Amino acid sequence: MKRRQSTGSGTEAAAGNGLLDRRALLAGGAGIVGLAAGRPALGAGELSVESWMREPGSPFTGYGQPSRFEAKVVRKFASAPGTTGTGASRTPLQQLNGTITPNGLHFERHHSGIPDIDPDAHRLLIHGLVKRPLVFTLEALARYPMETRIAFVECGGNTGALYQKEPPQLDLQASHGLLSCAEWTGVRLALLLEEAGIEPHAQWLLAEGADAAGMSRSIPMQAVDEALVALYQNGERVRPSNGYPLRLLLPGYEGNMNVKWLRRIKVTAGPTLTKDETSKYTILLPSGKSLQFVFPIEAKSVITFPSPGLTLKGASLYEISGLAWSGYGKIRRVEVSADGGASWAAAALQEPVLPKALTRFRLPWRWDGGPAVLQSRATDSSGYVQPTRAALLADRGAKTFYHFNGITSWGIGEHGDVRNVYA
Amino acid sequence: MKRRQSTGSGTEAAAGNGLLDRRALLAGGAGIVGLAAGRPALGAGELSVESWMREPGSPFTGYGQPSRFEAKVVRKFASAPGTTGTGASRTPLQQLNGTITPNGLHFERHHSGIPDIDPDAHRLLIHGLVKRPLVFTLEALARYPMETRIAFVECGGNTGALYQKEPPQLDLQASHGLLSCAEWTGVRLALLLEEAGIEPHAQWLLAEGADAAGMSRSIPMQAVDEALVALYQNGERVRPSNGYPLRLLLPGYEGNMNVKWLRRIKVTAGPTLTKDETSKYTILLPSGKSLQFVFPIEAKSVITFPSPGLTLKGASLYEISGLAWSGYGKIRRVEVSADGGASWAAAALQEPVLPKALTRFRLPWRWDGGPAVLQSRATDSSGYVQPTRAALLADRGAKTFYHFNGITSWGIGEHGDVRNVYA
Repeated sequence: MKRRQSTGSGTEAAAGNGLLDRRALLAGGAGIVGLAAGRPALGAGELSVESWMREPGSPFTGYGQPSRFEAKVVRKFASAPGTTGTGASRTPLQQLNGTITPNGLHFERHHSGIPDIDPDAHRLLIHGLVKRPLVFTLEALARYPMETRIAFVECGGNTGALYQKEPPQLDLQASHGLLSCAEWTGVRLALLLEEAGIEPHAQWLLAEGADAAGMSRSIPMQAVDEALVALYQNGERVRPSNGYPLRLLLPGYEGNMNVKWLRRIKVTAGPTLTKDETSKYTILLPSGKSLQFVFPIEAKSVITFPSPGLTLKGASLYEISGLAWSGYGKIRRVEVSADGGASWAAAALQEPVLPKALTRFRLPWRWDGGPAVLQSRATDSSGYVQPTRAALLADRGAKTFYHFNGITSWGIGEHGDVRNVYA
Repeated sequence: MKRRQSTGSGTEAAAGNGLLDRRALLAGGAGIVGLAAGRPALGAGELSVESWMREPGSPFTGYGQPSRFEAKVVRKFASAPGTTGTGASRTPLQQLNGTITPNGLHFERHHSGIPDIDPDAHRLLIHGLVKRPLVFTLEALARYPMETRIAFVECGGNTGALYQKEPPQLDLQASHGLLSCAEWTGVRLALLLEEAGIEPHAQWLLAEGADAAGMSRSIPMQAVDEALVALYQNGERVRPSNGYPLRLLLPGYEGNMNVKWLRRIKVTAGPTLTKDETSKYTILLPSGKSLQFVFPIEAKSVITFPSPGLTLKGASLYEISGLAWSGYGKIRRVEVSADGGASWAAAALQEPVLPKALTRFRLPWRWDGGPAVLQSRATDSSGYVQPTRAALLADRGAKTFYHFNGITSWGIGEHGDVRNVYA
C-alpha cells in the first residue's frame, strides 16, 4: 500500500450545492478522508464476542440463500385482477449495488404465469422464409458454439409513471424496478438462422414463447446480429421466471421482445402485428397516431442512492450512486446535478463500461442540510443525451406510458427525506 | 442480419487431431454451419402444444429459485468427522457456463460452520500500528465510497488431488470446484486504513473473521491496493456462506486470505503466524522445508467441456470450452491441444477479459472418434505460462497439496467418455 498524503485537492467543488470532483474517488479517496464515519476505538477488547462466535455455525447446503436478515430484499409484484401470474415483479434497485442483478431478484413480466417446462420435451422451431425448416432439442442446441455477454433487460413500460402530471410518490423499486442486468450465455441466433438458410426477401422474425399466453413479438432482422438464444443466466441455467429452458436475448431492445420460453422463430417478410404489439408497446402521440416499433431503449439513468424511500442522516459527505444504460451502445458520460440542473459535474463511471449493460456511476457530495434537487443525465456512445422530462413530453406528449427516459429528479427535504419531484 | 456465405475458410485446421481455427467462432460461426444438430422440420404444426401451454403458469415470488429440473445442479460438500460445518462445498463448474458463479453455487470453505450474524450488532475494528484505532458499524461503512469489480476466489487447496501419483478419477466439480467468480462491491480497505492512519513501520495486516473458528490470516501490505471490504456479491448483500455481512476481498490472492465475516484488521510490523497459516497454507518441499506466504494464485486453466463425468455423443463437431484465470493479472492467451501437447491452437477468449477474474475460452474441435488428450495452457499478462504437471512437480515435489496449477489433461475414450490422465 502506498501511503498517501491528503492534499485536499480531490475535494474541490465540481458543481453547485456541494458536488465534489469525481477524482476524489478515482485517486483512491484521498479527498474523502475526513468522512470519519468510524468512531475511535481502544482495542480488540472492545469488540464483543457475540453468540455466533461461541458455537459452531450452520452446516453446508447444496444451494445457498441470502441471510435471514435480508428477508425484506425481495421483488414486489402485482397481478392483474382474477390472475395470479399476469403482471410484473420489480427489482429492489435501492437495496442493491454494483451492476449485476442476482437471479432471484431479476424483474419479471408475465402474460400468463410461469410455465413449468420439461427441458427434454421442449423444442425450438425455426421456419417460415427459410430453405430448411429446423427443429432443435435442448441437447442439440447445447452442441453449438456459445457466446457470453452482460446485458440489461428493461421493460418498455418501466418508469411509465413519470409521464403522469404529478410526480408519483413511489420508491425506486416501484418506479424503476422493471430493469435488471445479468451475464447471459447462449447460441447466436444468427448461427441457427444461417443453418436454416434465410430467403432473400426475409426482413423480420416472429418470436413466440411457450407460455399459456403464447406471447409473441415481431423483430427486425437487424436485431439478429447481437441476438442470443440464451441458455444460461449468471452462470447457471436460465430461471423459469426468465424463460427456462431458453429465452431470446436481444441486447438493448425493450424487454418484451426478449421472448422467454422461446419455442418458435418464424422468418417473415414484414412484421406480424401480433396481439402483444398492436394495442401494447406502441407510443400513442398527442395527434392520436401511434409510434410503432420503437424497439431499443434510449439512453437513461437514475440515482439509486439517495432515492425515494431512503433517508440522509444529517448534513455530511455522501456518495451519490446510480445506474446508466443505453440500448444503442455504451454509456460515455453521466453528469450529476445537485441544484436541479443549474450546474453539472461528471460522475465517475465504474469500469468496465460495457455496451447495452448497466453502468454504475458515483460522485461524492457534501450535503449542507439545505434544499437540493439531485439529477443524473446520461450520454451514450452515439452522442445522444438523455432529455429533460419537459423536452421528452414536448416531443411525445403524455398519453403513453412506454419508453420514458427523461431526467429523473429527487428532491431532498430538510430532514433528509427524498421525494420524486418534477424539476 | 448480414447474410453470410459459408466459405469453409473458418474450418481450417489450427492444430493436430481436429482442432479448428478460433476465427470460426469470432467471425460468427460461418465455418461451424454444417454442424446440423437441428433436425429438418415441416412447420409449426409439428410442435406439440405441451401441458404448460394449456393452463396459466405459476404466480410471482419475492425471491426466485432455479427450475425443479435443475435440482441436481448443486454444490457437493464434505465435512470433517464430528462436525457439520467444517469442510468445503464445491461449485459444479461442469454444469455452468459464462464466467459468473450464481450466489447459491459459490464454493464454500468453512472452519467452524456459517455464523448467523446480526448486521446491527456486527463491528469492524481497525487497530494495531495506527494513529487512530477505529470501529465501524455496517451503517458507517455504507457511507463510504464504493467500488465494484469482478473477481475470482479460489481456495489454495483447489486441484490438490492432481499432485497424487495416479490421476484421480473425479469429476470437474470434485477436482476443480473450489473456484468461483462474482461481481463484488464494497469499500476500499485502503480508504479505511488511511482514515485510521497507519504507522511508518507497518508492513502487514492481520485479518480475523467472526466465525467460531476465529479464522485469521496475515496479509502483506501490498495486497491492500486492490482490497475491498465487500458488502455486495452479484448485486445483493454478501451471502452468509460468503461472509455476511462483510468479507475481505483480495483479488488474486488464495481464497483463505479473503477473510469472511471480517471483524478485525490489526496493522502489524510482520506476519502474525496464526494457527490458520503455519500448519496449513504452506507448501512443503521435498527438502522438508516449507514455502511460506505463497499468496496469489498462479496462472491456471481447465477445460470444462468436455470433462470427466460428461460424455461426447459420437464423432462430430464440438466446442471445447473452459476457464482460465491468474492472480497476477489478465489472461493474455489460452492454447488448446487435442494431441496431448504435441501441437497447440489459440482459443478464442470471451471479452471482456478482466484482471483476476475468470476468462471463458472456446475452440471448435472436430472429433474423429479416435483417441485424444485435451489440454489447455494459460499465459497471463505478466508473461507467465502455465507449466506442465511434470515441470511443476520437478520444481516443487509432490508432498504438498496447495497451489497446483499444472496443465490438466482429459483423455477421450472411444465411447466419448472422459478421464483425467497424466500426459
